[in-house]
Amino acid sequence: MAQVRFRDPAGSVRTGELSDGRIDAAGRTYDRDAVELLAPTEPTKIVCIGRNYAKHADERDEDVPDRPLLFLKPPSAVAAPGAAVPLPAGKEHIEHEAELAVVIDKQARNVAAADAEEYIAGYTCFDDVSNRDDQDREQNWVRGKAFDNAAPIGPAIAPPEAVPADASIELRVNGETRQSSSIEHLIFPIPELIEEITTYMTLEPGDVVATGTPEGVGPLSDGDRVEIEIEGIGTLEHTTVRR
Amino acid sequence: MAQVRFRDPAGSVRTGELSDGRIDAAGRTYDRDAVELLAPTEPTKIVCIGRNYAKHADERDEDVPDRPLLFLKPPSAVAAPGAAVPLPAGKEHIEHEAELAVVIDKQARNVAAADAEEYIAGYTCFDDVSNRDDQDREQNWVRGKAFDNAAPIGPAIAPPEAVPADASIELRVNGETRQSSSIEHLIFPIPELIEEITTYMTLEPGDVVATGTPEGVGPLSDGDRVEIEIEGIGTLEHTTVRR
Repeated sequence: MAQVRFRDPAGSVRTGELSDGRIDAAGRTYDRDAVELLAPTEPTKIVCIGRNYAKHADERDEDVPDRPLLFLKPPSAVAAPGAAVPLPAGKEHIEHEAELAVVIDKQARNVAAADAEEYIAGYTCFDDVSNRDDQDREQNWVRGKAFDNAAPIGPAIAPPEAVPADASIELRVNGETRQSSSIEHLIFPIPELIEEITTYMTLEPGDVVATGTPEGVGPLSDGDRVEIEIEGIGTLEHTTVRR
Repeated sequence: MAQVRFRDPAGSVRTGELSDGRIDAAGRTYDRDAVELLAPTEPTKIVCIGRNYAKHADERDEDVPDRPLLFLKPPSAVAAPGAAVPLPAGKEHIEHEAELAVVIDKQARNVAAADAEEYIAGYTCFDDVSNRDDQDREQNWVRGKAFDNAAPIGPAIAPPEAVPADASIELRVNGETRQSSSIEHLIFPIPELIEEITTYMTLEPGDVVATGTPEGVGPLSDGDRVEIEIEGIGTLEHTTVRR
């Protein structure tokens, strides 16, 4: 009973429930492959977490932070399931980062970790596409992380109970496994992230918290096909294009 | 003929033209003091520039960057003219930063500096309220710059021709002048900022580019009254509150 957004054959944007390759929406049933899936949420902001798996901090030669490392992606970074993500022009080192993303259910401000579950609509897959050429030489990761379509997200928002605490997370490029871990290795667990973020800012319904990537990040090049699969959610696919 | 957004006495949100203390909107005239001014734009993102005046980089003991230093504030950071801006709880060093802000007129992507003027709706005043306790110890300035109401903006969007190239910019706290400079001292001029930003991301209509602050930044405490006056635009006022 995961939730999707899609454009139906007549062009209307609808929200529906995905199961077994079918989408149920307002009394009608659609074949998933007959409609255009959209990003399952329209966030006003995406709050991302850096270095939230120890082995990824290691591979980037960075320390594990003493509190969540936060950065932002704006709405213009969103990309839909199936999108061809443009690699930023003239940049050599673009990398994938498979992540579990939290979709916020209701306005959240000063939420204690113990209450955070109430504010979670569900979980989805996320690619924190990263432009290392710029990220590695700028104070704030704007050129590095906030460029257009640097946030493929989807395909569906799975309810929290569908995703086990040790859910597997895997990323494949052109069928080859690059990242394979479990969300149980998150350094700062999701309730703590929500408490920390909402100490400073209000999360709005539909906003996204991207929880960080495990080890195995690697290069993307023109025409790659990326799949991010998280247990209990499904598989987000996108491609890349060098323009 | 500066443009404002406001809530009329019946509660409707309207856009109107401000002149001589009166607002003209859809054939009616309102007294400016009889309506609630709102932020003059509803940005999907605010792209801010750090250290874009040499004397401010000096006072922060930082180098002038070799390209624009970018950071982001999300929509939840916006505060209206007249707002009481909450100072983040438990943080000691909150500072004001008076800035000229550009409001985007139409969707902008890969815009050459020579064409940037076409994409500018106008200019307004902006306070890049900054939480130094966190800014000085985080990679990305999220706790430091992106907290709720850290972006007071307004009061009106002045057309580009109303703001001279050497417009004065001044900030007063409780009537005392703290910042006094001119936008002619911008290191990276506005067309170059728009070219650089839109190389990476799409600016949407209503989005804001905050162009950086001159020297004279200083502390804010509970109950301060802040005024930012830019020649050709007017004066943005807000207060602060420690909760």
